[in-house]
Amino acid sequence: MKGNGLSSLGRRTQSPPISWLMAAALETPGLISLAAGFTDNPTLPVRETRELLRGLLKSNSRGQHALQYGTTAGDAELRRLTAQHLAGQDGVPVKSRTHAPERMMITHGSQQLLYIVTEVLCDEGDIVLVEDPTYFVFLGILQSHGLHGRGLRVDRDGIDLAHLAETLERLKRAGELPRLKALYMVSHFSNPTGITTGYDRKAGALKLLRKYESAAGHPIYLIEDAAYRELRFAGPDVTSALLADPRGERVIYAGTYSKPFATGVRIGFGLLPEPVLTAALRVKGNHDFGTSHFLQQLIARAMASGAFADHLSVLRRRYASKAAAMGKALRAHMPGGVEWTEPNGGLYYWVRVPASVKVDMDSALFQAALRHKVIYVPGNLCYTPDRAGKIPNHEMRVSFGGASIADIAKGVARLGKALDEVF
Amino acid sequence: MKGNGLSSLGRRTQSPPISWLMAAALETPGLISLAAGFTDNPTLPVRETRELLRGLLKSNSRGQHALQYGTTAGDAELRRLTAQHLAGQDGVPVKSRTHAPERMMITHGSQQLLYIVTEVLCDEGDIVLVEDPTYFVFLGILQSHGLHGRGLRVDRDGIDLAHLAETLERLKRAGELPRLKALYMVSHFSNPTGITTGYDRKAGALKLLRKYESAAGHPIYLIEDAAYRELRFAGPDVTSALLADPRGERVIYAGTYSKPFATGVRIGFGLLPEPVLTAALRVKGNHDFGTSHFLQQLIARAMASGAFADHLSVLRRRYASKAAAMGKALRAHMPGGVEWTEPNGGLYYWVRVPASVKVDMDSALFQAALRHKVIYVPGNLCYTPDRAGKIPNHEMRVSFGGASIADIAKGVARLGKALDEVF
Repeated sequence: MKGNGLSSLGRRTQSPPISWLMAAALETPGLISLAAGFTDNPTLPVRETRELLRGLLKSNSRGQHALQYGTTAGDAELRRLTAQHLAGQDGVPVKSRTHAPERMMITHGSQQLLYIVTEVLCDEGDIVLVEDPTYFVFLGILQSHGLHGRGLRVDRDGIDLAHLAETLERLKRAGELPRLKALYMVSHFSNPTGITTGYDRKAGALKLLRKYESAAGHPIYLIEDAAYRELRFAGPDVTSALLADPRGERVIYAGTYSKPFATGVRIGFGLLPEPVLTAALRVKGNHDFGTSHFLQQLIARAMASGAFADHLSVLRRRYASKAAAMGKALRAHMPGGVEWTEPNGGLYYWVRVPASVKVDMDSALFQAALRHKVIYVPGNLCYTPDRAGKIPNHEMRVSFGGASIADIAKGVARLGKALDEVF
Repeated sequence: MKGNGLSSLGRRTQSPPISWLMAAALETPGLISLAAGFTDNPTLPVRETRELLRGLLKSNSRGQHALQYGTTAGDAELRRLTAQHLAGQDGVPVKSRTHAPERMMITHGSQQLLYIVTEVLCDEGDIVLVEDPTYFVFLGILQSHGLHGRGLRVDRDGIDLAHLAETLERLKRAGELPRLKALYMVSHFSNPTGITTGYDRKAGALKLLRKYESAAGHPIYLIEDAAYRELRFAGPDVTSALLADPRGERVIYAGTYSKPFATGVRIGFGLLPEPVLTAALRVKGNHDFGTSHFLQQLIARAMASGAFADHLSVLRRRYASKAAAMGKALRAHMPGGVEWTEPNGGLYYWVRVPASVKVDMDSALFQAALRHKVIYVPGNLCYTPDRAGKIPNHEMRVSFGGASIADIAKGVARLGKALDEVF
């Protein structure tokens, strides 16, 4: 037999690099992982979950309701509470059309929303604009589906609009605009850079995309992935791109309760314009009928009771001190020529080493780091190749999410030693 | 603009008929739904879940572990316990290669496993053999991906092997075998017919598929969907097709804890051969990283503590009496010429009306049933068109899962009245 019977997607899909990194962390005794996007263990809401579930399960009728199937779109009360939370963040009235619970669907983590949105928007060969660098699991979804990511330059305020305009113009001239379906951005305390995109940049990007739609022949959507928005410990919140799309036609907003509540409870959500919403709900029905009703009830109770808000303020203080610990360790242990910026939220520092040093998994630095029992996410994994096929290979994502404060200090010190060896 | 920007999958995917049926059930006061595949509400394990979670969450370290991310394949302990359970059902040693936990992945319901398996096996235009009739949500997955289902005749012992042989031969002659990827069957107390496929039929089907592989140019997989296996209240258990595939090369076995424990807790599992497993795990990582670790811990504790086994014996008694109540009601209220068989498990009766009566949603019978405030699943939804493009339209799936015993009697009586009106 010549074939293995797999589909082109089945044959094409690559092993996610993070699997290897996570497995390495679990299997190497004493290894400190600054790689995984795990959240802080000690602040996981064990007591809160226990109490919320005791309340949920003490009544038979409430308990039975929670343990039965729900609907494909998700629990109406959770959607209402989530829409209300988001309206509050964005400073708009609860009844705003853009923030209506009817436009929302609940998913098994926001990752599932990104997956389904990609499925309903993109055919093999289509193009999605992404930040350079961007969330590498989203790049994995693109790779799996045979899609092309095109990288956009970012600065400290987000996407470089001049580069976006130039890219759109180039796509137009090359006749590739009909293949362009969306622009994907991680808007708040980005994975991997920690950068937050300014509201003007989002509005500007949306305006530029609109301008090229007639040449594309179809809408070009802006996917705002706000997975880290709630994990803000400094600076003001930045309102969502939903405000720049008052008729609710172009912005797909993805959010999650995984990071701000519990990563083991996989509840994410999205606000979607038509016809994306209808198509996404149909596909979601085929995926799994709908998100675990039981987990949705837990989160709805966390929202309604105030436990979520209380927990969030604990988390913010915690991540502020973990970020500070990492900043201090970086200042103490990084050799000269290494640069980074202090994040205002999220879980990550993005660390740039001199151009003479490579960071990929096969690099001398990564191998030295492994010998010193510390790992990071090599920055090259977060890039799409540029037009010359090149990928920057001089940055690291280091996370203060999962490691303890002691391990953050120790891990960064080890990374410093590894860098010293290859400098 | 000429397009809406959706992918071919996004444009193609139809609204699942069950969504309409579920919505109708929720929105029509007094309607009795014999349509939905809901499980029995009063036996949902509220007390058991409360106690299991109290145990899980009383320790901070256990609780934190449960509330953190797990791995993509799923919790090692849950996979071990599930493999052990399945080995016990199949009467093979726990260490059997076919039943190894390393071959298993945990998913958000077995529906998600079916979805991912379809993604990694099938390209648009490919063919999957299905029972006629079959599980209509699986037909929805095929429709969404632009795949062709080919129906196989079934009798009371499952797939008609002569018809399978004839179908394979016809595909070979037509040069279509290279497009055939799998045979999908609902093996135990089938959705929708209630039929259980005999082990010899499964082994025979596997042998036939093997015979045509060289002409196909690749493996042809047997997907055994055993979602209802645990809900057996009469007759012996039938061992899985895994036993007919001792080297673990061709059978994909899908199981679930949703039906036998709680539908609101979406935990399913699959045992997969290589290279399907590796591809499926990569795709699962892109879907959602992995299944909710918290829900997995709940089920692992239910398995380890014996709560699952205890609950199962409660469920079996309960469904036995609900099935008996439905049988009694059918005998009392169905007009002459209506036929059905008593199921030994699962949630469904499959009821055949005379050829002069149609059952589809637009039929006089369905409209009469709606007026009498009862709904069923029209049998036509469970068929792929035959070679002449025809679909049988004279059967109904009626479920005793969700409705109370009183409502089962009342619902069937209403259905009898509707039938009387159109006879």
